Amino acid sequence: MTDKKWVYLFSEVEAAEAYVGGGWEGVRGLFGGKGANLADMDRIGIPVPPGFTVTTEACNAYLNAGGVFPDGMWDQLLEALKAVEAVTDKTLGDPESPLLVSCRSGAKFSMPGMMDTVLNIGLNDETAEGMIALTNDARFVYDAYRRLVQMFGSVVMGIADEFFEEVIETARHQAGVSSDSELSADHWRAITAQFKTIFRSHTQVDFPNDPIEQLKMATEAVFKSWNGKRAVDYRNAAAIPHDLGTAVNIVTMVFGNMGDDSATGVAMTRHGSTGAPKIEGDYLINAQGEDVVAGIRLTQDIEKMAKEMPAAYTELQQIASRLEKHYREMQDMEFTIEKGKLWMLQTRDGKRTAQAAVRIAVDMVEEGLITKEEAVARVTPEQVDFFLHPQFDRRAVKAAQEEGQMVATGLNVSPGAACGVVAFDADLAETWAKEENKAVIMVRPETKPDDVHGMLAAQGILTNRGGRTSHAALVARQFGKPAVVGAAALQIDINKRRMTVGDTVINEGDWISLDGNAGEVYLGKLKTMVPDIRDPWLIKLLSWADEIRTLGVWANADYPVDAKRAREYGAQGIGLCRSEHMFFEADRLPHFQRMIMARLPIDRRESLDALLPFQREDFAGLFRVMDGLPVIIRLIDPPLHEFLPDVVELMGELSDLKLRIKHAGTMDEIDRLLEKIKIKERIRSRAANLREQNPMLGLRGVRLGIHIPELTSMQVRAIFEAACQVTREGITVLPKVMIPLTSHANELKVQREVLEEEAKQVMAEQKIEIDYKFGTMIELPRAALTADEIGAHAQFFSFGTNDLTQTTYGISRDDAESGFLIEYMETGILPDNPFATLDKAGVGQLMEIAITKGRTAREGLECGICGEHGGDPQSVALCHELGLDYVSCSPFRVPIARLAAAQAVLRAKA
Amino acid sequence: MTDKKWVYLFSEVEAAEAYVGGGWEGVRGLFGGKGANLADMDRIGIPVPPGFTVTTEACNAYLNAGGVFPDGMWDQLLEALKAVEAVTDKTLGDPESPLLVSCRSGAKFSMPGMMDTVLNIGLNDETAEGMIALTNDARFVYDAYRRLVQMFGSVVMGIADEFFEEVIETARHQAGVSSDSELSADHWRAITAQFKTIFRSHTQVDFPNDPIEQLKMATEAVFKSWNGKRAVDYRNAAAIPHDLGTAVNIVTMVFGNMGDDSATGVAMTRHGSTGAPKIEGDYLINAQGEDVVAGIRLTQDIEKMAKEMPAAYTELQQIASRLEKHYREMQDMEFTIEKGKLWMLQTRDGKRTAQAAVRIAVDMVEEGLITKEEAVARVTPEQVDFFLHPQFDRRAVKAAQEEGQMVATGLNVSPGAACGVVAFDADLAETWAKEENKAVIMVRPETKPDDVHGMLAAQGILTNRGGRTSHAALVARQFGKPAVVGAAALQIDINKRRMTVGDTVINEGDWISLDGNAGEVYLGKLKTMVPDIRDPWLIKLLSWADEIRTLGVWANADYPVDAKRAREYGAQGIGLCRSEHMFFEADRLPHFQRMIMARLPIDRRESLDALLPFQREDFAGLFRVMDGLPVIIRLIDPPLHEFLPDVVELMGELSDLKLRIKHAGTMDEIDRLLEKIKIKERIRSRAANLREQNPMLGLRGVRLGIHIPELTSMQVRAIFEAACQVTREGITVLPKVMIPLTSHANELKVQREVLEEEAKQVMAEQKIEIDYKFGTMIELPRAALTADEIGAHAQFFSFGTNDLTQTTYGISRDDAESGFLIEYMETGILPDNPFATLDKAGVGQLMEIAITKGRTAREGLECGICGEHGGDPQSVALCHELGLDYVSCSPFRVPIARLAAAQAVLRAKA
Repeated sequence: MTDKKWVYLFSEVEAAEAYVGGGWEGVRGLFGGKGANLADMDRIGIPVPPGFTVTTEACNAYLNAGGVFPDGMWDQLLEALKAVEAVTDKTLGDPESPLLVSCRSGAKFSMPGMMDTVLNIGLNDETAEGMIALTNDARFVYDAYRRLVQMFGSVVMGIADEFFEEVIETARHQAGVSSDSELSADHWRAITAQFKTIFRSHTQVDFPNDPIEQLKMATEAVFKSWNGKRAVDYRNAAAIPHDLGTAVNIVTMVFGNMGDDSATGVAMTRHGSTGAPKIEGDYLINAQGEDVVAGIRLTQDIEKMAKEMPAAYTELQQIASRLEKHYREMQDMEFTIEKGKLWMLQTRDGKRTAQAAVRIAVDMVEEGLITKEEAVARVTPEQVDFFLHPQFDRRAVKAAQEEGQMVATGLNVSPGAACGVVAFDADLAETWAKEENKAVIMVRPETKPDDVHGMLAAQGILTNRGGRTSHAALVARQFGKPAVVGAAALQIDINKRRMTVGDTVINEGDWISLDGNAGEVYLGKLKTMVPDIRDPWLIKLLSWADEIRTLGVWANADYPVDAKRAREYGAQGIGLCRSEHMFFEADRLPHFQRMIMARLPIDRRESLDALLPFQREDFAGLFRVMDGLPVIIRLIDPPLHEFLPDVVELMGELSDLKLRIKHAGTMDEIDRLLEKIKIKERIRSRAANLREQNPMLGLRGVRLGIHIPELTSMQVRAIFEAACQVTREGITVLPKVMIPLTSHANELKVQREVLEEEAKQVMAEQKIEIDYKFGTMIELPRAALTADEIGAHAQFFSFGTNDLTQTTYGISRDDAESGFLIEYMETGILPDNPFATLDKAGVGQLMEIAITKGRTAREGLECGICGEHGGDPQSVALCHELGLDYVSCSPFRVPIARLAAAQAVLRAKA
Repeated sequence: MTDKKWVYLFSEVEAAEAYVGGGWEGVRGLFGGKGANLADMDRIGIPVPPGFTVTTEACNAYLNAGGVFPDGMWDQLLEALKAVEAVTDKTLGDPESPLLVSCRSGAKFSMPGMMDTVLNIGLNDETAEGMIALTNDARFVYDAYRRLVQMFGSVVMGIADEFFEEVIETARHQAGVSSDSELSADHWRAITAQFKTIFRSHTQVDFPNDPIEQLKMATEAVFKSWNGKRAVDYRNAAAIPHDLGTAVNIVTMVFGNMGDDSATGVAMTRHGSTGAPKIEGDYLINAQGEDVVAGIRLTQDIEKMAKEMPAAYTELQQIASRLEKHYREMQDMEFTIEKGKLWMLQTRDGKRTAQAAVRIAVDMVEEGLITKEEAVARVTPEQVDFFLHPQFDRRAVKAAQEEGQMVATGLNVSPGAACGVVAFDADLAETWAKEENKAVIMVRPETKPDDVHGMLAAQGILTNRGGRTSHAALVARQFGKPAVVGAAALQIDINKRRMTVGDTVINEGDWISLDGNAGEVYLGKLKTMVPDIRDPWLIKLLSWADEIRTLGVWANADYPVDAKRAREYGAQGIGLCRSEHMFFEADRLPHFQRMIMARLPIDRRESLDALLPFQREDFAGLFRVMDGLPVIIRLIDPPLHEFLPDVVELMGELSDLKLRIKHAGTMDEIDRLLEKIKIKERIRSRAANLREQNPMLGLRGVRLGIHIPELTSMQVRAIFEAACQVTREGITVLPKVMIPLTSHANELKVQREVLEEEAKQVMAEQKIEIDYKFGTMIELPRAALTADEIGAHAQFFSFGTNDLTQTTYGISRDDAESGFLIEYMETGILPDNPFATLDKAGVGQLMEIAITKGRTAREGLECGICGEHGGDPQSVALCHELGLDYVSCSPFRVPIARLAAAQAVLRAKA
């Protein structure tokens, strides 16, 4: 055991790597994240304050032995200390040249604030005087000294911090000042003395004067903090194993407040908002690190450092570049300049906006730092999504923050920006939104199923309770409403119709703005902007994604304008044109209703003849836009009663009309009313007749086509007449006719025979050959299960995953998504909404069966997906895994799908 | 080629068998059915008239050669004829002892009346005189002679039969008689002469006087008739191959009309109605075979033959016994006694009633004729079903037939007996049935979807058009309504509201009776009876089925009375008790509605407490009846709004109440009305709130249990309190709690935890341990697909195939079964109604996946089915194949399922 190495100087990282044999992950396990990071910087020649790491293995050994350092550890530690003293030319406890060190915890996985740290170890009365002599700054030294006593007291000895804080408060009071910064060196000296008294009275021992003793006790305290209640709770919550242990990092203290040749700052290697390749950050001359973070003094833009401390700035630039080369990522750095000497204290991957993320990834490829594949893998689909939705204007946000308009933060559970007037209940939210056309933010302590109508009417949702899976969060995400939940600082008083944060009062009807991306709440109405999807870096990134992906990305579009957008966004075809959407338009609906009401085939024929030119023009428009790309047109799908007025409404209208007869003045009026009643009654009767108990499982899709073959024949005629017409214009048309809701091969066989006959007839009439296909939706479990039989009659498959999810799960989407599905996600019964993210175990399994069987029947059968899942990254990945040929999604989701499809390839390779 | 044997004497059947090498099937192929049958009887020593068969191969050779007998055939035929002449001691064409023969077609598969036959070959002027000398019956001989000329003319030479019939008619007219039997020998002699004149004038040749020439031409005619239009059409319709060919059977004519020592008759070896083991039949002394069939003379009961022709009767009995031993089946025989000598002309498996089928099968086992397995395999599930439904009293049917009350026959498309008054349209049928409580038979030329409401209201359905897959047939079977369709003899005059058959007129409102089993229509109201399920033979047969089957048969029963019946019928457990059915009862519904309306949990609690004792008693009753057998109780399944009044109805009631306010006389009255409106409005609002677009896919099953856990907890408490109580009474209780509509393992996990906790608590309170299980329905595709995950939380599976079919097919049963499903079956898109017969390819596949995966998760997991398919024989067979443990069906279907389960085993062995 004595041979075992428990302590590594930062410079000994390669020995550690050899020991763990598990690459960098292994070193992180042994050194913890912080230690590994410092050692790593040291290795590549970045100046970090000298120091060393006591390993996590030492921690475990210490804890397992019941609080005894393992054999040899302490000696190794003292030896490492000597090495540090040698390079720093300082000595722990030497008043002439005192070395101060920090003793910090650091586990493999970040556990922010959960474990202990002691700074300024090495100070005692003697070394303090020595420091004063060296720095000529008694206030700084005694402030540092009292911090040591305070931290040591609370962290190592477990004295409640209040006892210390009380002393400072009294001192402020007596001095007649309101902030610590106004206290003088003498104050701090006196406070230090008082702290020692507190220390003694609580622990019965003196504050250890011996720096070595300080170091030993601090090290033990850090080890023990691994099993502190906070740390254990955190690990349980974050699913971090309990047997990892924490390392202890002993690092030389450096100070940025040692005069005008000292400074401290933070900097990003590139701009975190725009991604521009230039150092961005803030710094302060003659200041401590915490001063920059705390915002006590106004920081300076890092650009100024180029003039004020040119050498250090140049070095920082070089370091930034070295770090980026090393980590191949944009870095967020902390540094301190002590008497002209630059020390790096930390570096980590920098946070950035979506736009910056895209630009940085692209720039880094062009700088040769990373590969295209890495760039594509780094940008998240959510970041691409950002380019497609309104966001608050960055300058407006900054201004609002500076003016103190940001009143609360909460969880960023549903992205996007929303402004509106506050409404404290769902009914009011709905009334204001619908009747007064107001933009509303619905604010509730938490939401319940009864609130859904208000949430749907609102622009955004804000609560002061609840988490990421709360009802409010789930419903908001469901319906794409920006939302901030759990903004605990808000005091909501429903009775008084207002909420307060500190002194700020927000009354019902006041404007607020919600940033669902950041989880922030602002007073007033912030300016919004739509980021530009034509961002050149995004275009480049997506073009690389296109090179990588094997999955096609098509779009669902019913009208030429949508198809145009889809094509601009990179869609390679139309995967779904819902041909019945056109029937709902004002100039067509009367014909369609007449078709439904027709008793005789001849009347039906007339209405269909009237509809034909409309449909032909609709399809011709689509074909023109999609010149050279395939267009899948799905034949009519919904049940007929959807095209008629609602029966309950009709009943209301009828009883109104009947009442009016009672009050009619003339016989003429009565006659007119009776005629109206007769017509309405006919519609009511037909609508009632068509009404189904479960229309989702009713007379729709191919069933309708078989029931009224002349309807789908008209549609096919319109498709092929349009195709011929547009072909004559010199456009390349690739129409694919899709038959929906097939459950049995015979349905497809029968319907396709009729329809293909019609298609051939049109082509013969027009003397033009069209390159066409007939295929089917796979949107019922039976279709998937019998895909071999169905595949014999289909030239392509398209998965309708909305319907397929409904029937596989037996869940009616319309009813459930504002009902029990939310309950299921709140309670964790379902991890995801299966209508948003494909259910791999169930629906995915059926898809796999269908693809395998379909391709048995027809080699290389083209399979795609046209449900809404086609725009969900996780689902796109599943589609790639399943070997689909393409996904088809809303035009707005096309860029996301392109990226997700490429990432799926990269993940599969990894 | 000359070596080939084309002609076989009946006695040479073994040579034929050796030649074909394919057992009896091969002989039937070579000899045709008739020839094989005669040869077979000859072989076992049954007296058949001597004869021989010209093979189907000869026919094919003849036809392929363009109408030339194959080499050697004719010589072989003449040789065979010589052999027949030798045994009969008669010679073809010898006036002293003339041999007469018939020349009959006979193909492998019966094609009744489709091909040709010539009788009485061998008669000419000389042999006719010889016959008269022998028989002393000139009338008989000349009648036979003119038949030969007539048949030869029409069959062999193709002369239209009218020419011959005209002559007879004229003769009758001239003789002043109305029937042929009144014509004398002289008449027939003259007619024969006239026939010959017709023959000559149509064919330009004389009727062939040479019997050998007659025989040759008749043989050729039979060969050619294989390719006659009628025969070809029939083979196309019946899917009989066209290359089989027909054999020609040349058989000695025997005559039962040669005096009082001659007779002819038909007999069954056992009673066709009761199955009693005694010859049953009719015969006539001194008569021809056709006289018995045609009913010209009143036949005598075969029992009389024992006295009148004791020797022949004894021989017939012995032959019957021999035939049964040989064929191991009850036989339907034709025989002729010529001058005391008994000849068997035909034998075939006899038709029988369901009761007879059961008794015969059982008796034959006990007589050692067949094995138990064979008995079980022979009785069809439909025959067992017969015992469970009302049928017409057999004597009433016989009487009605004798009195000519049977007015029409049609296709027996939906079994059962129904009497009612005729209604010629659906609306009237519904009105009479619902408002006047009349039994109605709906009569239409054919039915359409618009007629379904009338069909549902009617007792039975009758049409004069349509076939087995017509709308009427399908709907009738669907809803279990007896029906006769395609009764073409009926002339339906909808305008005059009446139908006619010949002279009989049936007006709307007149009583008729339909026999759906036989496809018969009777005037008036026939007496019905319910056959006895306690029929001792049936009980024995089913007990043998029980020995054979491996699949359990359980029953679906909600109430003790149903459970009792199920047990009597042989159910081995309750596979499904629908626990919510009790909530609909008058004394419980108000509590349940209050529970639904409750805003506060405390109010809900109160209503549930009130319901608990009811449920406990319900379950206790079931447990008592099922002492020692398992009882599966399914927790509440349907959506809550089913327990509230219909919203549309409520709207109507509300507007009535509001109208009444307008006319209210006093303030008090107004107040009362307002109060009522308030209450109704609350119910309406809640009902509207609970209403779902697709309730089948909505908040029901386990979703409801998770949503209102106190509801299912109450049910579980009731189950376990009942179980404890009944256990104390000394009864063995095996309760199984079944959670419906699981789609995700987590639902089951969460709900089971809550419920099992409740169960344990009750058992602890009551200090009784109950042997219980918690399981789930598998009734959604996702449950089947993820059965491994679900199986981890379920102690048993029960397939709810009704729901599973709905979601797998995406078909709402309520809407579709009176809608497009019928259309699908009419047009053959679907072969069966998937709600009646399990869809093997889709639903069956899911079941297979579920069983396999479920048993991976839990070895030997008990799997059953409780959908209505459990009582459908074809589905029972599939369940057996899939390896289910049991099927559970309606108590009435239990006997059928027991038989079907046994037959599935036998089929699997075969």
